[in-house]
Amino acid sequence: MINYSNGRNFKEKPVKSSKIVKKSLSFSHGNRGMDLEADINLSNEYYKENEACLITKRPTPINVVKVDYTKGAVITNAYFEKQSTTDYNGVYKGRYIDFEAKSTLKTSSFPLSNISKHQIEHLKHVLRHDGIAFFIIEFAKRDQVFLLDASYVIDFYEHGTRKSIPYEEVVNNGHEIKKGFAPRLDYLEIIEKNYMIS
Amino acid sequence: MINYSNGRNFKEKPVKSSKIVKKSLSFSHGNRGMDLEADINLSNEYYKENEACLITKRPTPINVVKVDYTKGAVITNAYFEKQSTTDYNGVYKGRYIDFEAKSTLKTSSFPLSNISKHQIEHLKHVLRHDGIAFFIIEFAKRDQVFLLDASYVIDFYEHGTRKSIPYEEVVNNGHEIKKGFAPRLDYLEIIEKNYMIS
Repeated sequence: MINYSNGRNFKEKPVKSSKIVKKSLSFSHGNRGMDLEADINLSNEYYKENEACLITKRPTPINVVKVDYTKGAVITNAYFEKQSTTDYNGVYKGRYIDFEAKSTLKTSSFPLSNISKHQIEHLKHVLRHDGIAFFIIEFAKRDQVFLLDASYVIDFYEHGTRKSIPYEEVVNNGHEIKKGFAPRLDYLEIIEKNYMIS
Repeated sequence: MINYSNGRNFKEKPVKSSKIVKKSLSFSHGNRGMDLEADINLSNEYYKENEACLITKRPTPINVVKVDYTKGAVITNAYFEKQSTTDYNGVYKGRYIDFEAKSTLKTSSFPLSNISKHQIEHLKHVLRHDGIAFFIIEFAKRDQVFLLDASYVIDFYEHGTRKSIPYEEVVNNGHEIKKGFAPRLDYLEIIEKNYMIS
């Protein structure tokens, strides 16, 4: 079992530079500090290598203000922009897949403040064009990860009376994602079972 | 007609910071200096607003080395990374779409040096999973833009005896994209006619 002792909501604040540098290196499989994003990236690598599907992560959008060309295009002034879409998209059996991954340290509910209005709008567009859209939600302290359909989250976001989705609702309306060595998080199994009925 | 007097191969060198800043502003529709990327972005905006399809541009990947938190997360040292995938992907009628756009100033052929090995590999993966994959190729001096299927380009890249695809081959094997006011480049029409036969 993975111990998420340092589980954190990796979406709530800009990542530190040291974190980014770390992410470009390969991870040790024994690393117990791995977060949700790293787990998903590893799962996607596994899926790609095994030709199961192709899901890629969108790079973090950065607004470049100044570039120093005297040193060979070094960016000397820039800032992080908020992702106006989601973090991941790709293809499985010809179908378009799009999702956002979020982790919370709360145990009783998933706060909707983690999700931006832009992301909701983006996922509504995806659904309009018959794409497969969902959220991967981690309850870090419970060591549980769920796949929750985007339409459910959108409905809760727009018409719900609460500002967070209760844990029980996630359990009842989502699908718990099986954890393993490879893939770390087998969310494709859930897509195959629940979205590929044609 | 749009006069591509400053048509240029926008993929061959890192964009200047001034260019990036410009891109985040809205374009004047009368701007005759618009390049292929801007035309595609405007077309995608049009498609999105008219609920025809949803195609998004991947942000340019940037490797962040140093962030100054004393000024509120200002990136002070970073560099452009080579895109290991393609620039655009999205969804049309549930199907996954993935493409790369390239412009050349040459008139007799399209040089394959414009395309990276990583992009070829990425598109091979897309095709393996039944995604719709192609290139949008502009001959800037001819003021012509073509949609060319990825499998054709991959085959030429891997088994061709030439280092560039002759213009006539692009004409014979591709589809010229109609230009207009909105969408600027109606490539979706070609997808509908050639890829959506189920």
